[in-house]
Amino acid sequence: MECRPSARPPRWDVLQSLARVMETPEKHLVSLLSDPSRLERFSLSGGGLFYDYSRQGVDDKVMVTLTELAGDLKLVARFQEMMAGATVNVTEKRAALHTAARRFEPGPVNVDGRDIMADIGRVRREVEDFCRKVENGEICGSTGKPFAHVVVVGIGGSYLGTEFVARALAARADKGITLHFLSNVDIDNFGAVVNAIDPEATLWIIISKSYTTAETMANARQAERYMADRGLDPSRHMAAVTSQGSPGDRTDRPLLGVFHMFDFIGGRYSVSSAVGALPLGLYLGYDRFEMFLRGAEAMDRHAAGSSARDNLPLVAALISVWNNTFLGYPAQAIIPYASPLAKLAPHIQQLNMESNGKSVTVDGVPLEIPAGPIIFGEPGTNAQHSFFQLAHQGRSFPIDFIGVIRPDHERFAETSRGVTNHQELWANLIAQPAALAAGSTDNDPARAFSGNRPSSTLILPDLSPESIGRLLAFYEAKTVFEAFVWDINPFDQFGVELGKRLAATVRDRMAARNRDLSAAMDDDADPWTRFYLEMLFTGKMP
Amino acid sequence: MECRPSARPPRWDVLQSLARVMETPEKHLVSLLSDPSRLERFSLSGGGLFYDYSRQGVDDKVMVTLTELAGDLKLVARFQEMMAGATVNVTEKRAALHTAARRFEPGPVNVDGRDIMADIGRVRREVEDFCRKVENGEICGSTGKPFAHVVVVGIGGSYLGTEFVARALAARADKGITLHFLSNVDIDNFGAVVNAIDPEATLWIIISKSYTTAETMANARQAERYMADRGLDPSRHMAAVTSQGSPGDRTDRPLLGVFHMFDFIGGRYSVSSAVGALPLGLYLGYDRFEMFLRGAEAMDRHAAGSSARDNLPLVAALISVWNNTFLGYPAQAIIPYASPLAKLAPHIQQLNMESNGKSVTVDGVPLEIPAGPIIFGEPGTNAQHSFFQLAHQGRSFPIDFIGVIRPDHERFAETSRGVTNHQELWANLIAQPAALAAGSTDNDPARAFSGNRPSSTLILPDLSPESIGRLLAFYEAKTVFEAFVWDINPFDQFGVELGKRLAATVRDRMAARNRDLSAAMDDDADPWTRFYLEMLFTGKMP
Repeated sequence: MECRPSARPPRWDVLQSLARVMETPEKHLVSLLSDPSRLERFSLSGGGLFYDYSRQGVDDKVMVTLTELAGDLKLVARFQEMMAGATVNVTEKRAALHTAARRFEPGPVNVDGRDIMADIGRVRREVEDFCRKVENGEICGSTGKPFAHVVVVGIGGSYLGTEFVARALAARADKGITLHFLSNVDIDNFGAVVNAIDPEATLWIIISKSYTTAETMANARQAERYMADRGLDPSRHMAAVTSQGSPGDRTDRPLLGVFHMFDFIGGRYSVSSAVGALPLGLYLGYDRFEMFLRGAEAMDRHAAGSSARDNLPLVAALISVWNNTFLGYPAQAIIPYASPLAKLAPHIQQLNMESNGKSVTVDGVPLEIPAGPIIFGEPGTNAQHSFFQLAHQGRSFPIDFIGVIRPDHERFAETSRGVTNHQELWANLIAQPAALAAGSTDNDPARAFSGNRPSSTLILPDLSPESIGRLLAFYEAKTVFEAFVWDINPFDQFGVELGKRLAATVRDRMAARNRDLSAAMDDDADPWTRFYLEMLFTGKMP
Repeated sequence: MECRPSARPPRWDVLQSLARVMETPEKHLVSLLSDPSRLERFSLSGGGLFYDYSRQGVDDKVMVTLTELAGDLKLVARFQEMMAGATVNVTEKRAALHTAARRFEPGPVNVDGRDIMADIGRVRREVEDFCRKVENGEICGSTGKPFAHVVVVGIGGSYLGTEFVARALAARADKGITLHFLSNVDIDNFGAVVNAIDPEATLWIIISKSYTTAETMANARQAERYMADRGLDPSRHMAAVTSQGSPGDRTDRPLLGVFHMFDFIGGRYSVSSAVGALPLGLYLGYDRFEMFLRGAEAMDRHAAGSSARDNLPLVAALISVWNNTFLGYPAQAIIPYASPLAKLAPHIQQLNMESNGKSVTVDGVPLEIPAGPIIFGEPGTNAQHSFFQLAHQGRSFPIDFIGVIRPDHERFAETSRGVTNHQELWANLIAQPAALAAGSTDNDPARAFSGNRPSSTLILPDLSPESIGRLLAFYEAKTVFEAFVWDINPFDQFGVELGKRLAATVRDRMAARNRDLSAAMDDDADPWTRFYLEMLFTGKMP
């Protein structure tokens, strides 16, 4: 399988040959795992995490060649350049500085000759100050009630990262704040949220870089109307996270606060910025949010400061490219054996698929096969009782197993069959990768397992804010390293534009009908648009 | 691409040739959609739903051949046999009678000469009676508090279907009951649930057919201990759904109630049985649960009573096999433009991947390529702001778009850009399939869309219990029809056994260590097991 017709890195052909070798029976994982030193040789510690790729379909030759490829492509140096403010988002001519949002070491990061750390520091202080004032009641609702509900109004990158972190750290949320997410423009999403809040005690945070995102603006209007209908002053119940100079960044429209986001941080990488800081600072306390940032910073430093062979996210990225491009796996599962990480897979699904679901290189050269796998996942052991039938006996797909050494709720320590719940969870975390790799024979073909199904195991010490920051930064760095290997731009997303343009056309037709229901204004529309508009406006099934 | 080396249906080769034709530029969706009659010809109404497959990569010849294949394989007749109690689960020598759980028409359904409708009727009445008594306070907690929380303790098939339906119908849950799910053995799942309940007002429903499921039993023990620690009598706070004669079906261990499930209904098909009836009857009221059953029954009748070409789930199954086996798509997304359907994809992920993720036919003949796609999905428009970049410009995968004509919360009708939120949602539902199919050219390759990305659109009139029942039964019937075409057994799941066996071995080692921490009993374990056990027991990262 070829990926790049031109400008192919020198070792690409070698890897293609090696992939054919790895598909032979001699390289079945059962054979590879018979080497007792394999776990030690094919695992890494760094940045506060442990990464075991010994059950991936790689041997020494593959790993040496992949590491040489990393050297040829100067992956670590390019990561350092990204962190230093280089214009790595070439199609949009921007830097990509999500790492700066969690940078605490002194010294400037310059973009176009300007030190952006001053801006980042200012926003951090503004968010911290706001969180403190909400916590001590200095800022409260228009009827004097302290805020007990925060509704995050945002979609995609303004939503998924925050939801992942909030869910992961929910056991630590002791500020009396319930967090709600109003992402979808679906009015039933709005209805479910308002059914769960006390409007007098609710703060709405509108998050949109452009402050023109159709879904977010529709929800913000719906919220304003909802407050007005209840005699509440929206300007005392709303704050905004948006870019400087956007329609939301207006002093004539009083809000409780406006916090800036920057065009050098893309939505899907933005949870470390004000996008995550404001809701998470309120929900967890700002100090915990800063601990989360410090964990992410530690992983950034590891990614920028380790050689290719000792670099967790870099090695994970090489494995990912190997599986995707050379072994031809189209999908990848993320299975955390930790319920609080339930929203990790949806977040990484966005992060990775929106970053690397591309068909052209940074120079616009078409790839022969598109980059980027389909990402999906649910927590284990739930996944075992759901789709793992297919993982064991159907189409094979690589899996990231994720384990957490110490759970949050250790105090519930009743045992069943001689083990605690947490031990039972780990018994499965240990057993599943082994079963997938080894398989087993059986006279009944329906009960036989062919094995040779690859996986990695990633271990966190605990579910502290630092660990969650490390985990997030691990996947962010892995995504960027993958893109560097594929020579694609992980920071643009032109693929979402066409649908937006067509939706705008349909919306205009709807608005025209709303103004004059009797007019048959859609004669020039295609049959599908006419048909579905008719269905919606008449409320009738065909 | 070949699927079956032996016993291949007569039209298999024809379909393989047709697939090569469909991959030519002349058969790009842009060409196919230029036919103004296509929508009408390639769409169907039935069973209360509307199904539009006009944007799939099929032409008349393909549809005729697929329909002939359906005839050759007698798909409708086999579905009728299944509903009549035939032993369709051949490897386990059982009937598969989830359809009987929602059958209201008179007359027997015989299994081994016994009319099972009597058992089903009895369980329905017992559940209804129990729900009524909880609702009117006749059954309450051991301190006299009425039940306000119900915790569903179950995993996989004892969990996902109920969660899907509960979430879909949450706007109708007016019985004062909050529903919680304790599925994962993760102690942090338990911790999160107990943080959200009032133990005196909580009913725990333990759901396990065998009453030996490791996760469920561990959670049940944890719950009993939790109640005992608070001076509550577990026998006044627990009910069980299990099979007759299981360890949970004991009269000497007093429970508030035991409700039977039957071995002729598999876990992933069981939401229509007591598995769903008890929690959903309490949460929604039993009458609404019965309306859900009646919707499912209507779709069952449609599936069993319509010819192949007019049969929604059958045509959808043919399209799915076509995409998967003949066009080679490894994955399938389910994107409901309706937030209340947020848990549809995880449920269908289990239903379909566990049913059809198989590598051997019912006769044990290996398939050349495994059957069954990877299923994943999130609600739209959220998905557009997450992974749709890859859908538009990366690897192609077929999508089921799902729309709902009337939302639950129509009363919030503020407009933005001239349209309501629900209209904005539909503008996107209309635009996305069009954009994926048509694509668009651009001088800048990074902004070009190759199009030809297939999708179906499925429409529900509303989010009533009947509609949700229809939707569930549509996907159940589709899954079964797919399996009939692939000649696999969609009712067994031997693929989950190996992992369970290995986990039991690891669990035994853990239990031994718990008894004697100092003993080094794991010398005979493989290096991975030794290493990860050490990590867990010492609590230390390497």
